[in-house]
Amino acid sequence: MSTIILDQKAIRDLISMPEVIGAVEQAFRDWAQGSGSMPPKAYLLLDQGDFRAMPAALPQAAGVKWVNVHPQNLSQGLPTIMAIMIYNDPQTGYPLAVMDATYITAFRTGATAAIASKYLAKRDSRTLGIIGAGRQAYTQIEAHMQLFDLELIRVFDRSRDATMALINHLPDYNLQECSLEETAASDIICTLTPARAPFLKKEWIARGTHINAVGADAEGKEELEPAILGDAMVVVDDIRQASIAGEINVPVTRKIFSIDEVYGTLGQIIIGEKQGRTDNDTITVFDSTGVAIEDLAVAKLAYEKASKSGSHVSMDIIEVSP
Amino acid sequence: MSTIILDQKAIRDLISMPEVIGAVEQAFRDWAQGSGSMPPKAYLLLDQGDFRAMPAALPQAAGVKWVNVHPQNLSQGLPTIMAIMIYNDPQTGYPLAVMDATYITAFRTGATAAIASKYLAKRDSRTLGIIGAGRQAYTQIEAHMQLFDLELIRVFDRSRDATMALINHLPDYNLQECSLEETAASDIICTLTPARAPFLKKEWIARGTHINAVGADAEGKEELEPAILGDAMVVVDDIRQASIAGEINVPVTRKIFSIDEVYGTLGQIIIGEKQGRTDNDTITVFDSTGVAIEDLAVAKLAYEKASKSGSHVSMDIIEVSP
Repeated sequence: MSTIILDQKAIRDLISMPEVIGAVEQAFRDWAQGSGSMPPKAYLLLDQGDFRAMPAALPQAAGVKWVNVHPQNLSQGLPTIMAIMIYNDPQTGYPLAVMDATYITAFRTGATAAIASKYLAKRDSRTLGIIGAGRQAYTQIEAHMQLFDLELIRVFDRSRDATMALINHLPDYNLQECSLEETAASDIICTLTPARAPFLKKEWIARGTHINAVGADAEGKEELEPAILGDAMVVVDDIRQASIAGEINVPVTRKIFSIDEVYGTLGQIIIGEKQGRTDNDTITVFDSTGVAIEDLAVAKLAYEKASKSGSHVSMDIIEVSP
Repeated sequence: MSTIILDQKAIRDLISMPEVIGAVEQAFRDWAQGSGSMPPKAYLLLDQGDFRAMPAALPQAAGVKWVNVHPQNLSQGLPTIMAIMIYNDPQTGYPLAVMDATYITAFRTGATAAIASKYLAKRDSRTLGIIGAGRQAYTQIEAHMQLFDLELIRVFDRSRDATMALINHLPDYNLQECSLEETAASDIICTLTPARAPFLKKEWIARGTHINAVGADAEGKEELEPAILGDAMVVVDDIRQASIAGEINVPVTRKIFSIDEVYGTLGQIIIGEKQGRTDNDTITVFDSTGVAIEDLAVAKLAYEKASKSGSHVSMDIIEVSP
C-alpha cells in the first residue's frame, strides 16, 4: 500500500470546475441527510498567524485539511494561505493521499458560492458583481460562469492593479471595471474582501439581489451593512461556524441580528427541506465560512481521478508490515 | 521552496532514542514555561474507528499529527494506529515536511515514560516490568535502557506469543517471561494494554515503585486499581486530557479520585516548579495520555536532521508563485 502525493499542478490537471460543483453539491446533500460528519475546527494561534485543522467525513471518505493564515506572507512573496490535505480510507484509516489543498480551497469556495447562487439568485441573473479582485475572484467567476448565462461581470477593488490583472487574465469573459456602487447593482454580488467594517450599503442593493458574503471568515470580520441582513433571507453553510466566524458574527455578537433569523442552511435547501428563492423581490444572502466537507469532497474527486489515471507520485510513507 | 517527505524508513534512519529523549524533555520544559501551545485535539468519530487531529506549536516549530485508531485493522494485516505529521514553519505557515508519525508516536511515548521514570522512579531502579508486550513495549524498553542500569526486564502478556516475540526480538537485554504478579514486583512498571477494567492490584505494588500508566488513552480505559492512585503521587502529562482520557478518567468520573489529588504535571517537575521523588517509599504514577508537543518535538528533530543530510525526497506540493 502506498500514499499518493498530489502537488498543486497535479490537482489542477485532475479537477475541473463542473466536477467540483457536482462534488461539493453532493457533499452538502450527504451532510444534510446525516451521511457526513464535521467536528469543530481546531485552531492553533501563533504570533505571526494561525493554523486550522479541519477534519471531516463523507460516505467513503475521511480526512483533514491543515491550513494556515499568515497575513504578512505577501511581503515575502508567499501566499497568505497554504493548505495540505490528508485523505484517508475511512474503513481502515490508511492515508490514501497527501495533497495540496490551496488550489482545492479556492475551487471549492467558488463552487459553493455558485451552488448557493443556483438556489438563491434569480434564475435569469445576467450580471455578476465581484468586490475584491484577489485570488478568490477567479474561481468565483469560473464557477458562476458554469451555472449562469452572464452577460456582464462588474469588478471593484481598492487596488486598480488587482482589478486590471483580473480583467486581463480572463479575456474571454465580459469583465468591466466599476465603482463599488455600480458593482453592487448586479443580480449576484460576491464580496471577497478581508474587511473588518461594513462597506456594502443597503441603499445600493436592488430588490431580488443575491449576495454571496465570502470574505468574513473569522471573528470581527464583516462586509455587509447589518441592515441588509435584517431585511434579507439569510442562508449559511454551517450555523455554528457562521455565528462565530462568518458574515453574521459581528451582528450576532452585537445582538442586532439573531441566529434565529437565519432562514436555513445551504444543505437544507439543496435537499428540499427548505425552499430556495420563490420570487423576484427577496434579497438573499449566503454566508460562506468554508466548511471541511467541501474540501473533502474535492479531495475525494482528485484522489479517485489520480487513482484511475495512474500517473502520480506515490510513496510508502507508512509501513504496513507488522 | 519544497516540502520534504519522510517515510517510516527515513524516520527510523534519522532519529535515535537518546536524541528523542532529549527533544521530548526539552518540549515539556518549553511548554511548562509557556513557550508552547497545544489546543485540544479534534476528534472525528466513524463507525469503524476514529481520527484525531493533534495540533501543537513549540519554539521555531508548528504542526499537526493526524492519527487514526481502527481496532479491527489487525485482522486485515494493517496497524490499528497510523499517523501522518505535517510540519510547518511557524513564521510563514509553509509546510516544510510531511512525514510518517507512526514510528514517531511509538518513540515519543517510550521516551516520555522514561523521562517520567527519570524524575519519579528510584534512581537505582534495576528492574523494569512490562505489562503488555505489543508495539509499545519495544520503545518503552529501549527508552528506559538509556536512562537506567536495568538488570532484569520482566514481561507479562496474556498472549505468550507476544511475550516470546518481544523476548526474541531483544536478545541483548535480560528479558524474562513472568506472571502478572511477578512483573508487578519491579522497580518501574509500564502498563501498556487496552484494558477497560483494572488488572494491576494494589496489594502487588511495593513501596517505592514507579508506574507508567500508558495504556489508558481514551474514555473508559483503565489499568490500575483506583486504590493505587489514592495512595500514590500522581503526575500527568496534561491535566485536562488525563481527566478525560487518561488512567484517571474512570476514577474521576466515578468521583473516587479528584483532579485536585493530582500532584502536578511532568513539565512542572522537569522545570523544578514541583519536586520529583524525594524518598524511597512513595509510590508514583505517571498518567501518560500522549500530547501533541511530544510528536512535534520529534518531527522537528527529524526535519532538521533530514535538512542537513540532504538525502531525502522533496516535492513542491504547494506553489509559492503568486
